[in-house]
Amino acid sequence: MLNRKLRMLRQRYLKPWIKYLRCSPALKKVVLGVDAGASKTEIAALDLSGSLVGLLSSKPANPSATSVKVACKNVVNGVRKLVNNLKDVEVVALGVGMAGVINEESKEVVRSFVGKSLNMDLSQVHVFEDVLAAHVASFAFGDGIVAVLGTGSCVFGVYKGRNVRFGGWGHLLGDEGSAYRIGNYALREYLKFLEGRDRHSTLHKLLESRLGSRSVSDVLATVYRSKDPKGLVASLAPYVFNAFKEGDALAREIIEGEICLFSEQIVAAAEALGMKCPEVSVVGGVFEGNKELVKSLLIKCLERKFSACELIVRGSLMRASCASALIALKKVLGDAYVSDALISAVVKECSVGT
Amino acid sequence: MLNRKLRMLRQRYLKPWIKYLRCSPALKKVVLGVDAGASKTEIAALDLSGSLVGLLSSKPANPSATSVKVACKNVVNGVRKLVNNLKDVEVVALGVGMAGVINEESKEVVRSFVGKSLNMDLSQVHVFEDVLAAHVASFAFGDGIVAVLGTGSCVFGVYKGRNVRFGGWGHLLGDEGSAYRIGNYALREYLKFLEGRDRHSTLHKLLESRLGSRSVSDVLATVYRSKDPKGLVASLAPYVFNAFKEGDALAREIIEGEICLFSEQIVAAAEALGMKCPEVSVVGGVFEGNKELVKSLLIKCLERKFSACELIVRGSLMRASCASALIALKKVLGDAYVSDALISAVVKECSVGT
Repeated sequence: MLNRKLRMLRQRYLKPWIKYLRCSPALKKVVLGVDAGASKTEIAALDLSGSLVGLLSSKPANPSATSVKVACKNVVNGVRKLVNNLKDVEVVALGVGMAGVINEESKEVVRSFVGKSLNMDLSQVHVFEDVLAAHVASFAFGDGIVAVLGTGSCVFGVYKGRNVRFGGWGHLLGDEGSAYRIGNYALREYLKFLEGRDRHSTLHKLLESRLGSRSVSDVLATVYRSKDPKGLVASLAPYVFNAFKEGDALAREIIEGEICLFSEQIVAAAEALGMKCPEVSVVGGVFEGNKELVKSLLIKCLERKFSACELIVRGSLMRASCASALIALKKVLGDAYVSDALISAVVKECSVGT
Repeated sequence: MLNRKLRMLRQRYLKPWIKYLRCSPALKKVVLGVDAGASKTEIAALDLSGSLVGLLSSKPANPSATSVKVACKNVVNGVRKLVNNLKDVEVVALGVGMAGVINEESKEVVRSFVGKSLNMDLSQVHVFEDVLAAHVASFAFGDGIVAVLGTGSCVFGVYKGRNVRFGGWGHLLGDEGSAYRIGNYALREYLKFLEGRDRHSTLHKLLESRLGSRSVSDVLATVYRSKDPKGLVASLAPYVFNAFKEGDALAREIIEGEICLFSEQIVAAAEALGMKCPEVSVVGGVFEGNKELVKSLLIKCLERKFSACELIVRGSLMRASCASALIALKKVLGDAYVSDALISAVVKECSVGT
């Protein structure tokens, strides 16, 4: 019994250390983290003390926008490029945070493709949903609710060892508050205007300049014949925010409505987890482009439900790519390796904006 | 001047007659009408007295569900099959009513493909939007508003020589009241239920039996990996109507909400045309499957706007395929040929349900 326990302890804590400390002393050991997104893929390289030794922005790798194969290839090419840039490094772990890997089967497909292409031991490669990387980037393995407002949207909360996930149903069925939804509703209003059912406004003026089309059939042809209708519609969101900032009532109505609809998922997550005063971290392009505005709108919608407590709504602690690296490191070298000190070092190195 | 007028009159009224009356006396002259739909394509053959001499149901031909080429091929194959069945006929005109041919360019593509494939003179082939065929099927070239509630939705109104078209923006941007939208909203509610945010209800029970999937990720995979997500979502609408009929409050809310949203387009059309008490004809699968229910909901929503007048809401007079044939006949043989007597004959032969 004691023997078994000792063996287990050795396997868990010592073996990985021995392996990585004794082999190839000339190579610097690094862990790589991937944030595979719909508009770009970011790859971070950390050394084992938590220093950011490399960062690379590569082609998009969202399997629902391209195909799984193309997404995997873009990840592999990005990783190869970064490793070549770094020279003389040994990759001890690779974490890939990717949208759309919603079940074990699809995670395994990506893991196998990426691992084999890079000649890595599959035990060193870990694939998970992008929302998990966003959560770690926000709470460093602690409790809290991450609210993703990018091209799509979803909510992922962790509290006292339990986790829940709400939304994330994609552009056809959900994505409240996302760039796609905000762009979509603005486009519907613009089409109404083109039909003569609405007055000219700042919102319509901005969409007209962006789309360059002035008839319903032109707009419909542009959207439905686009290779990426979802991306096209989402690309309109910044124009809606600009119209809002210029005082457009319609744009305000759309954005406020969407943020409040989205906040229902945060409320549902907090309730399901039994969090009385949730700490919420917001990530994604919709937030990045309009931090103060989105934060204040979200607080306004959430306060209705959490009137009796001090709500915290803030941004991320670190880049999602660095969080992906930390997740993989934890899996490969064990929980104990990813200490508070290491996390602090990574947060310092990888704070968003660096 | 008089000479020119006589020549014009002869060209307009006599020439077509002479052409079709003198050649190939052994062949029976027919006009064909196509109603190219997302679920099937119906082709009708009328003789020149308005008798229905053939009717064929063929493969779907919606260019936005398949490709333009496949849609055209399915129309051509259907027409060939019907003409072979009929034997010894000469096609003097072919009318194709098709969704998605929203501009002259796309009409021309279909006209050219279909005409050339069938070895027809292009002047005998006429391509128009399905909504025009639906209008003629409803009002026999008279005034009124046709409300299409099928997989998609739109409104087309004609009054005192003017016409307007509202909606018809497709599943990404519009389609209020359509099977797609009703199915879509029901699916969102079902996903909420699967997330544990809603109680079990008749609607959820029916969707569960239809989809056979019991987790959010299963449902999302089913929808997004489907070859035809739009058709899949639209196919759920009948289950929502059944839940409504069984007293489900959620299903009632979805359907009432959608029909009322859709009615705004009818109101907009009536206002734009200056119709005080519009006559509305409803067509499409959502209506066909639930005539009395949809009619009464629509009247309830419209009455708010037209409280001072007698609203008429009814179904179609004839099959859209026969209306397509009449439109083509009018183009080829002239307005005068399509007399009230001929229309009456066609209505009698082609009433829906025969």
